[in-house]
Formats: sequence, structure tokens, C-alpha cells
Amino acid sequence: MAKAAKTEKPKKAKPAAAEAAAVAAATKDTDFFERLMSLAKRRGFFYPAAEIHTPIAGFWSFGPLGAAMKRRLEGAWRDAFVKDEGYYEVEGSNILPASVFVASGHLAGFTDPLVQCRRCHAMHRADKLVEKAAEIFVPERMPAGEVDRIIADNNIKCPDCEGALDKTRMFNMMFEVKIGATEPRETAYLRPETCQINFIDFANVYRAMRPKLPFGIAQIGRSFRNEISPRQGLLRQREFTQAEMEVFFNPAEKAFARFDELKDYKLNVQRVGSEKVEHITAAELVKKGIVKYELIAYYLAKIQRFVSSLGIPLEKIRLREQDPKERPFYAESAFDCEVLTAFGWVEVAANHYRTDYDLGAHAKATGKDLTAMLDSGEKITPHVWEISEGIDRTMFCVLMQAYADDNERGWEWLRLEPKVAPYAAAVFPLVSKDGLDEKAREVHAALAKCFDVLFDKPGSIGKRYARADEIGVPFCVTIDYDTIEDGTVTIRDRDTATQRRVKIDELQTALWNLVFCSAAFEKIGKEITSKKKE
Amino acid sequence: MAKAAKTEKPKKAKPAAAEAAAVAAATKDTDFFERLMSLAKRRGFFYPAAEIHTPIAGFWSFGPLGAAMKRRLEGAWRDAFVKDEGYYEVEGSNILPASVFVASGHLAGFTDPLVQCRRCHAMHRADKLVEKAAEIFVPERMPAGEVDRIIADNNIKCPDCEGALDKTRMFNMMFEVKIGATEPRETAYLRPETCQINFIDFANVYRAMRPKLPFGIAQIGRSFRNEISPRQGLLRQREFTQAEMEVFFNPAEKAFARFDELKDYKLNVQRVGSEKVEHITAAELVKKGIVKYELIAYYLAKIQRFVSSLGIPLEKIRLREQDPKERPFYAESAFDCEVLTAFGWVEVAANHYRTDYDLGAHAKATGKDLTAMLDSGEKITPHVWEISEGIDRTMFCVLMQAYADDNERGWEWLRLEPKVAPYAAAVFPLVSKDGLDEKAREVHAALAKCFDVLFDKPGSIGKRYARADEIGVPFCVTIDYDTIEDGTVTIRDRDTATQRRVKIDELQTALWNLVFCSAAFEKIGKEITSKKKE
Repeated sequence: MAKAAKTEKPKKAKPAAAEAAAVAAATKDTDFFERLMSLAKRRGFFYPAAEIHTPIAGFWSFGPLGAAMKRRLEGAWRDAFVKDEGYYEVEGSNILPASVFVASGHLAGFTDPLVQCRRCHAMHRADKLVEKAAEIFVPERMPAGEVDRIIADNNIKCPDCEGALDKTRMFNMMFEVKIGATEPRETAYLRPETCQINFIDFANVYRAMRPKLPFGIAQIGRSFRNEISPRQGLLRQREFTQAEMEVFFNPAEKAFARFDELKDYKLNVQRVGSEKVEHITAAELVKKGIVKYELIAYYLAKIQRFVSSLGIPLEKIRLREQDPKERPFYAESAFDCEVLTAFGWVEVAANHYRTDYDLGAHAKATGKDLTAMLDSGEKITPHVWEISEGIDRTMFCVLMQAYADDNERGWEWLRLEPKVAPYAAAVFPLVSKDGLDEKAREVHAALAKCFDVLFDKPGSIGKRYARADEIGVPFCVTIDYDTIEDGTVTIRDRDTATQRRVKIDELQTALWNLVFCSAAFEKIGKEITSKKKE
Repeated sequence: MAKAAKTEKPKKAKPAAAEAAAVAAATKDTDFFERLMSLAKRRGFFYPAAEIHTPIAGFWSFGPLGAAMKRRLEGAWRDAFVKDEGYYEVEGSNILPASVFVASGHLAGFTDPLVQCRRCHAMHRADKLVEKAAEIFVPERMPAGEVDRIIADNNIKCPDCEGALDKTRMFNMMFEVKIGATEPRETAYLRPETCQINFIDFANVYRAMRPKLPFGIAQIGRSFRNEISPRQGLLRQREFTQAEMEVFFNPAEKAFARFDELKDYKLNVQRVGSEKVEHITAAELVKKGIVKYELIAYYLAKIQRFVSSLGIPLEKIRLREQDPKERPFYAESAFDCEVLTAFGWVEVAANHYRTDYDLGAHAKATGKDLTAMLDSGEKITPHVWEISEGIDRTMFCVLMQAYADDNERGWEWLRLEPKVAPYAAAVFPLVSKDGLDEKAREVHAALAKCFDVLFDKPGSIGKRYARADEIGVPFCVTIDYDTIEDGTVTIRDRDTATQRRVKIDELQTALWNLVFCSAAFEKIGKEITSKKKE
């Protein structure tokens, strides 16, 4: 059911040779994960929620740097998918009445099959157990009795203690909330996906904004799922942030106005049944009938380009076409945008052609008009292409990719793209006397109008670079004695550790070009010719 | 208990003569509220959550314009209280384990006294009933038995049906959530205030950022309260957004580094027991001992200045000192920043001196070190000044203030300050032929890099101005035939309905100055001398 649309679970890797090698390379450093988590905590990216109390698994808290990076990632998504498209962003409530999830099907179908060990009482996902022990694929909607039959036929036991297993039961993953003080209180649920708002508010947005098809309704916000085994840092949480967009379109319209912009973009597509990723243009994707609409090819290209713009190399991104058995029944086609990490391939964005399933279901349940009018005056229930990005897991994949601990530099550091780094730059005074501190604060204040900029105290330059590298600051600006004399500062590029000299007056523009326009560092300011005392 | 810190309830007005007149003036337009709510829905600001289904009172959904305005308001708060101060913004989870609320005292004390009618079963707030019927003030922690005694002594009946009342019971306003699949499941709660994160994550933030006292930890996020009578639009909700900052400081330090910047700022202070607002500088506030610390006077001045910067006239803002009976027991002093509206005085930001109550409580419950180190090496539990802004209710007050329906203009409009309007500007082509549409899209795209800008289709200029006014667009840019000839555009000021002519090359800077630097409209571009055909 709808759950599959945002499975939020890392896909099991079925690695081809190259992929296996890449995973092996990424995972041979066995304590990499622990070191990244330690850095995340030490420098204020994230840590378990309520860590000083008794934390519950699956809930996290973002410190100042994590919250800043998350905001920048959300901003980048908003720029790409809302602003660039001229679409609409909404913000709905986290708590929604039960009637919404009766109509959407979540109340009946947003379930996991669970089985408990009679001896040690451990709780297991029955589908995962069966797949592992008997290599039988359990589709989303297999009845519990059928799962039990497979367990019995294959004599599957508790993987922890070899004990006998109890009967499988379907466990709804939504969190229930009771509203009001008078019994019987009203039943509501924390939304398990943000996108139901985009459907149920469709008519209000459509009437207010008067758009023509195609148009999108987007939302960035929290979702909540009672996961049985939250794990792997930010990859499987019980509360997480999604950025979801529903693009509403006319299914009779095969063409898409902006298709030309991306028609020659090469996508990394892994077809159903294939072990291999093909590199295929958006135009070919449509021509070969792999997708039905230019709009779909366009947004698949756009999501791949977006994920790669965050610093994930193209060879570590794939759009994996879902098997008809895995995909939710309303979806005519579904592609998971996955990133190769030390945990194997991780889904960062689900992409689904949801047809008119959701609008149809809500219209049927409420009797409300959820149609759009064509230029001809005809009313249709629009079809939906959905892009559902997991913000936290995207952030975690970006951090895993950015993490570096090369012996040459002598410290851990994060190669974060300037557009998602918590700070665009850091400003240091060489020493805190002779007016350098005041000058540095002045430069910091000027830059802070346009960027998130760190101000660090004076101290050993080496230590400050190490501290800035560790949190992925792409550019460090040092105010020294020459600054007072000639109005120039040293700017250091994190990735190459090279330095150039820039006039203070030009610093803001230089940084803008570096951060937002991918300007080459060696084109900024001037080479440092004389050896400066730093 | 902690509840009072964020009462989120409009205070009953005890109007002095001027105030009474102002309230009367604001409320004599009896369907003002309905018309504002209708505009809000029609133009996509907000509407009840799940409106097409069966909405539950107290939950709202923000449409594209409301979500944009809310983001701008949050951004303005972030600029003023986080960025300008160089403080830290965090982002915690909405669901927190019960242990947090045992320590904070919410589990025991975050309650309302409720009483049900035995005949009609209506549920009432017992404290409100008693205050209304017997004019007896019921403090936060009066035992239920005592309330019942007052009800009996004064023969208080159900206000709906005159029926007899049942016994008063203390009703906890937190929403409970059960986590996991194995019984007994873990008990957690949706946070009733964001700020507990700022306390429980104190040590992690302190270690990561290494700040010196004073410093702030801020958060913008949702909070959840099972209110018995949600009402008055966005003023009393069950799910709402707070912007909260805890400023941690050394209680032995009376001075505050930035105090000078605001020491001469005049605050509108209403002292306990007084019906009158005094205009008193921050310096006097300290000198007279009304507040103990320069830091407190500074932040009281800052919150008043912030609220006034959103378009609330100074005479409609007051800082009402809380009576010792109303304020929570941990607070040594408390000032509600209130705004005068058609509903009377509405609290938009609570300001509390929470002392070391919360850090002390969490340290005691967990055994963890929640201290900060002074330059002397001494460790202290910092004291806390808290600023707790209700984002939704601030937004609603700003909208009520901005709403205008003057007969002269002939349409409803919103006099929103440019810094909180959903769009900074709108761009229209005069007609869609002769290249004007393309030119308008070009101008729109250039402005959209820096601002949220609306693009509207060609049509009657009057209708488009009316539509733009209705959603508070401060500046409208029209591309006409002269634009093609001489590269200038018409820019119209919403509030004066006057127009000037600006070069396209200078448009971005002009708009920047208008929106962010309060530039005077008559200083922008040139007067329109010849009558243009529009």
C-alpha cells in the first residue's frame, strides 16, 4: 500500500561486480560509521534525542551545525523543485483525523507483518525473516496466514534463539493520538507521510492559486512511523523530515514544456530484472517507452541532477525501477533514486507515478470535487507524479560521502559542497590585538548579511583550519597585518588547502561566485607570491 | 507550572479607557473576523486541516501564501534573535520520552482543571468558570478539591444548561504516543513546548560550540497541546509553531555587552497592579530595579522592537508584567508581550526569567553535568532568560492589523510590512503579445533570484492590482511598451497606490532597498511625468 511509496528503508544490495567492489571499499574501514557518528556528536551535527535521559531508538536531535546543514539542504530542494518550477509550497499539520487515513488506505494497509518468538519474545519482521531464511519474496499485501504457512513449511525459527515463532500479525505503523477531553475522544494519527496534505488540500490550493496543469504542490515537514527496528544513524528513524512534491498533470498530454532543458541529460537507470545500470538520456527514456510521459523523464533527470549537485558522484547514483511486485498497487511505474554507501544502496528519494489514485480516493470518501479544468472546459482528475525525498537520509548519505580521514592532512574532514555546508565560510583574526579582531568582526558582519559565516577566535592557524575542515567549511578567511595595510585578506580553499589573496571589497562577490556559481578557486583574487607570516 | 510559561491563551482584557475605545473600534466591525478568515481561505493563507474530511478543531493547514508568510516571519525572528546575536539554532524531535517530562515537571503539572456538566455533559475549564461566576482567581496549582469547594460555596452551575457540575479533575494537556510493537510499549509525549530540547541538549551544544556565557540556544518548531476549547482562528491551536530561545547567563553578571545599543529604547511596560502602560527606557528599567539584569531589559526592548517591526503600531504593544500569582513558580519575573486586537490583548511572546530551574531539574534527574565554565574556571549552572514567540498567533495578529477594507479603494487589502508579506513584489506584462510576456518573465526570473516574486498573467491592470493588494504584495512591477523602448518599468506602491518609473538594471537594488532597508518610495526611480497608456 501507500507505505511502499516512501519505504524509507535501505534496499538490499544485489551487487554487480563493480558495485560489490565499491561497497567493499567503503565498508573495509570498519569503524568509519562510529567515527562519523562521533564527529557528528562532537561538533554538534546530531545525536540521539533526549540523550541525557533515556533515549528511545529512532529519534534524533540536530545540533547547531546539523540544523544549519538541514536547513541548507531543504533550501536547495526548495530552490530546485519549488522556486525553479514556480510551484506551490504548503505546510500542513502533523496530526490528522482518522478519516484521512481511512480514505488514503493507510489505516487498513500501512502495515508490517510482525512475528514474535515464543521463547525469547524478540519481535521480527516476518517478511524479512522469510526472505532471508527461505528466499521467498513476500509482497506488500500477502495475508498473514499465507506468511505463517511459509514459516511452517520451511520450519523457520527465531534467528536470535532458534525458538518457535508465534502467529504473524499485521502491525500498523502509524502513531495514534487521542484528541479532546470528553470520552469517546477523537482518534487522529501522526502523518506517516507529508504528501497526504498535498492531496487533501488540493482543491483549496487550486482555487486560491488558479494554476494550469501541470503544477506542483510541495511540502517539507516531519513524518512519523512506528518502525520496529530503527537503525543506521539517520537512515531509519521513527520521526524524520520529508520533502515531497506532487506534480498534477493531464494524462492525455505526453509533452512537457520544459522537457527540452533536460532531454539530453543522461540518467543512470537500472531496469527491472537487470543487474546493470544503463546510461540513457531523458529523450531515449520516453522514446523507448520506459516512461510514458516527458514530465516523468524530466523529473527523473532532475532528481538525479539534484542529488549529484549535493556532492554524490554520478557513479554512486542510480534510478532503480521497481519490480511490479514491490511497487504499491496504485503506481504504474516507480523509480527509487538510490545512493551507494557503506551500507549498500540507500534510497534517498522515491519517485512514483501515482495516477489519479489518491485524488480519486479522497474525492470518493468526501464527495468533494477534486478535479482541475482544462482549457477546453473539461474537468479531469489530474494524474500525479510524486517526488519524495528523505531529507535526513539524504543528509546522512551526503555526510558519509563527504567524510575523509586522509593521513596526509592529519585530521578528519568533510568535503561538503558549499551549497550544503553548515557555514559558507569562516573568518579568523590572526591575533586578537592591534585591531585585527575588530577588523575580522567587521568582515564577518559584512559577509553574514548574505551567508552563514563562522567567526572563530584567534589561535594556531593550523588548529583553526583543522576545526573548520572538520565541519566542512569550504573557505576560510584570515585577517592579518597586511589586511590593515592593503585591505586584502587570505582565503583558503578547503579541498586543495591552497590560499589566495582577495581585496575585502571583492570578498562578498568572490564568495558568492564560489558558493553559488561553482567559480574556480584559482580564478579568485591573486596568487600569494611572497611568503606571509601566518 | 511550565505551562504558564507559554500560556498561549489570550489574556482577558482589563481595559483602561483608551484601550477600551481601541478594542471597541476594532470590534465594532462585527464580521471583520469572518471576512479575514474568508480572505485567508480564498487566497491560500490558511484553512482548517483536512477540511474536505471531518476536521478536528484546533488544527490548521497553511496554503502557499500562508506558508510563505510563515517562513518569512520565522526568517525575521531568526535574523533578529539568532543571527544578529551570533547564537545557536537547533532542531529537536517532536516526540520525546516520558522521562523528559517527569524531570521538567510537565507530567505532574502541565494540567488544566476540568469540570463536566452532569446534565448536558459539556466540558468546562473550572478555573475560567470560577473566575467568571464568582470573580475568584484560581492560581495554577490550586488543588481540585479546593476548586470544587468554591464551586459548591458559590453554587456555580453549567453555563450552557444550568445543570449541576461534576467533580473537578486535573487534565494533562500533553498528547501521549506509544512507541514500539512489544508490550509494554514505551510511553512518549508530543512536546508541549519546543524549549525542553534547548535544555536537555544544553551539554551537547555547549561542548560542540564552546561558547562563553551569555549565549542562546534557539529553536523554531511545532508544539502540541490538547486544548479543551481551540478557537479564534490561529490564536488557540492544538498544534502550533513556536520560536523559542533560552539565553544562558551568569547570574552574578549584571552588565550585558550589547546593552548600550538599546539602553535608550522606550518600552511599553505595564507593571503588576497598574492599569496603565508606562513608557520607560531599558536603562531606567534596570535602574529602578524593575528588572535585575541589563540582559533582561535588552531582550524586552528587542522583543518589543521586533513585534513593532512586523507592522504592529507601538501603541498596540505592551509588556505586561505578570502577577506573582499567574507566573510559574520557577520564574522570578515574567513579562508577556501582548498585542491589542479585536479580541483584546493577545499574548504573542512570553518572556520569562526561568533562573536555573530547568537545567537544575534535568541535571538532578539524570545526574549529568549541565554546567558552564566561567573564565575563572568555576563551574556554574547558568540562569536562563527565555523568549517564547508564538509564530502562528503573531502571524494572525499581524494579519488582523494589516487587514483593510476601505471603501475608497473598493477592495479588501493587506497592509503587510514588506519583510513579512508572502511576496516582495509582483510582475505583470501589460499584454501577452509583442514580446511583453517574455520580457516580464525575464524580469521576474531576475528578481526571483533574490526575492519571492509573483508572476501574474496579463489582464485588467486594476484587477491585478486588486488581487495583489488582497494578498499584501507591497510593490507591483508592470512591463509595458515603453519597457521595450527605454528599458524602464512602472513600479507601484501598495500603500499609497502611487507609481514611479525605474530602470530594469536598477530594479533589483531598488526593491532591495524598499523591502529590507525601509527606503522611501518617492526616492526610487523617477516620477511618472507623461500619462502612460496602461
